[in-house]
Amino acid sequence: MNVSLRGAYWIFFALVVVYLNDGKVVRAADPLPSWNNTSPKQSIVDFVDNVTKEGSPDFVPPAERIATFDNDGCLWAEQPMYFQAIFALDRVKVLAPKHPEWKTQEPFASVLKGDVKSALSGGEKALLKMITATHARMTTEEFHEIVTDWLATARHPKTGRRYTEMVYQPMLELLAYLRANGFKTFIVSGGGIEFMRPWTEQVYGIPPEQVVGSSIKTHFEIRDGKPVLVRLTELNFIDDKAGKPVGINQHIGRRPIAAFGNSDGDLQMLQWTAAGEGPRFCLLVHHTDAQREWAYDRNSHVGHLDKALVEAQRQSWTVVDMKNDWKQVYPSRND
Amino acid sequence: MNVSLRGAYWIFFALVVVYLNDGKVVRAADPLPSWNNTSPKQSIVDFVDNVTKEGSPDFVPPAERIATFDNDGCLWAEQPMYFQAIFALDRVKVLAPKHPEWKTQEPFASVLKGDVKSALSGGEKALLKMITATHARMTTEEFHEIVTDWLATARHPKTGRRYTEMVYQPMLELLAYLRANGFKTFIVSGGGIEFMRPWTEQVYGIPPEQVVGSSIKTHFEIRDGKPVLVRLTELNFIDDKAGKPVGINQHIGRRPIAAFGNSDGDLQMLQWTAAGEGPRFCLLVHHTDAQREWAYDRNSHVGHLDKALVEAQRQSWTVVDMKNDWKQVYPSRND
Repeated sequence: MNVSLRGAYWIFFALVVVYLNDGKVVRAADPLPSWNNTSPKQSIVDFVDNVTKEGSPDFVPPAERIATFDNDGCLWAEQPMYFQAIFALDRVKVLAPKHPEWKTQEPFASVLKGDVKSALSGGEKALLKMITATHARMTTEEFHEIVTDWLATARHPKTGRRYTEMVYQPMLELLAYLRANGFKTFIVSGGGIEFMRPWTEQVYGIPPEQVVGSSIKTHFEIRDGKPVLVRLTELNFIDDKAGKPVGINQHIGRRPIAAFGNSDGDLQMLQWTAAGEGPRFCLLVHHTDAQREWAYDRNSHVGHLDKALVEAQRQSWTVVDMKNDWKQVYPSRND
Repeated sequence: MNVSLRGAYWIFFALVVVYLNDGKVVRAADPLPSWNNTSPKQSIVDFVDNVTKEGSPDFVPPAERIATFDNDGCLWAEQPMYFQAIFALDRVKVLAPKHPEWKTQEPFASVLKGDVKSALSGGEKALLKMITATHARMTTEEFHEIVTDWLATARHPKTGRRYTEMVYQPMLELLAYLRANGFKTFIVSGGGIEFMRPWTEQVYGIPPEQVVGSSIKTHFEIRDGKPVLVRLTELNFIDDKAGKPVGINQHIGRRPIAAFGNSDGDLQMLQWTAAGEGPRFCLLVHHTDAQREWAYDRNSHVGHLDKALVEAQRQSWTVVDMKNDWKQVYPSRND
């Protein structure tokens, strides 16, 4: 090989590498810069090295590199309540002028008085009433637009950030790192599948077809000669706890080799993942950072973490101590 | 650019092209060699050229190039009855020694006497009994193995081929052609999702997570310390007719730009696809070849094609006349 041929080799090799990484120049340096050099980061890197090294006994072909992520409290924040609940409360206020009867009907009356605690004290029944009033009886396209519009303007009461700016920077890096290593990344969340899909591709790089979540039933019909899907007031599937492995099997049809969660709602997903043959990786994000984020676990109504933490110790899963293991929590702000 | 640099450019350009096409050398020649040069082939090529040409007003970004395919009668044959029904009948015979009561219970008694017509005369109720007896009350992993074992040995009564050798060669080429042009190919079938997933990746190049189908409910539980998913005797979802757009929305979360079917069970999927904005492609396979395959449409109990054919004419969808438009039906045999 003469000198200019060799030069050309390296130029085009570099181009191939850049192309294969979706146009982004590869950092030969640290792929997880927002993670401190503590043990969780090392476990992640070791696992990825192990399953991607050809010839290694633990090598996993790319098609089987399935990684599933919980959303609330794992990829974005979930305090003081699930962001989808805040969305529902906001929608009740927006829709109230068309529903004068809500002034005297619970849970709506409390919501309109700004008394969220009383509104939610009705438990599941109250929540279902609110979901029905705010998430159903419109087409899938109309709901997509409502969610998109809300996210474009709503701000978190404590941080003043847009909700999509309350995603975790270390987890964004982790998603990108796994994908750069041939993993296919999925969301498997108790949150509404149609509430997440309008924005997960832009924010997480996860396309709609890789989002698994809870859902209500929809109905196909022709309206004014145009086919539409109408969102009904009937639950279809709850993608939480024992529902997560069911949802994974239904949507993905193979068992993940890596799973990431933060609460007891993720326990069965992690158990299902861990029980497969060959190398497995399970991780829990433990919310320990009251200063930069929130600190909660056993006594929290959202992101309740108790049994899964016990199981993590028993099975030696990786537990992220947010305060000590993350250099940065949220992405740097643009505004 | 000197001469050897230019030479290196072409060598590495070729390598990139080969790499991007998954290791297979690109045929600059005909990507659809089993299609005659009749109008359906031309419509396919025109559509693909149109949506993939950067700068064209009809350009569609790769992420949105979703193509959905029916399975029975569209990707593989479906006569003299759906292959999954043949599987169920075979399973009844295999399981019969453990069920002496079947000798006097319908539809099992008729199946065991070899009288399929009487067995199926019980309609949906009889079918459900057989599905329950043959598809449920085992783990998802056990069912996967049963399907795999059956496909490895069972042979079609008329052709003597394995069922996975009764796929349509022109459709295999079409799947590969679309994927080489940045499309993501999905199956959307009335058939059982767990009946298809064990073999679609190997046969069609479609991974489990891109298979949408009908399903029964599953239940997560820990058995002897090991988490399993048990298949229940309760229907979960029928992915047929108006269920197809619902299934597409549930699994994929975006509207296809191209859809392929062969019966009235595909009508709503094609309507849903056609109604989106921008360029759309809808195709029906019309079974017109009694010699090489089967000829049937309006009067057939499987693959009933009537309303969809009328709609295809009204909306100018592409209709494949199998006899005239396909050079070859099945892949050349290996054995």
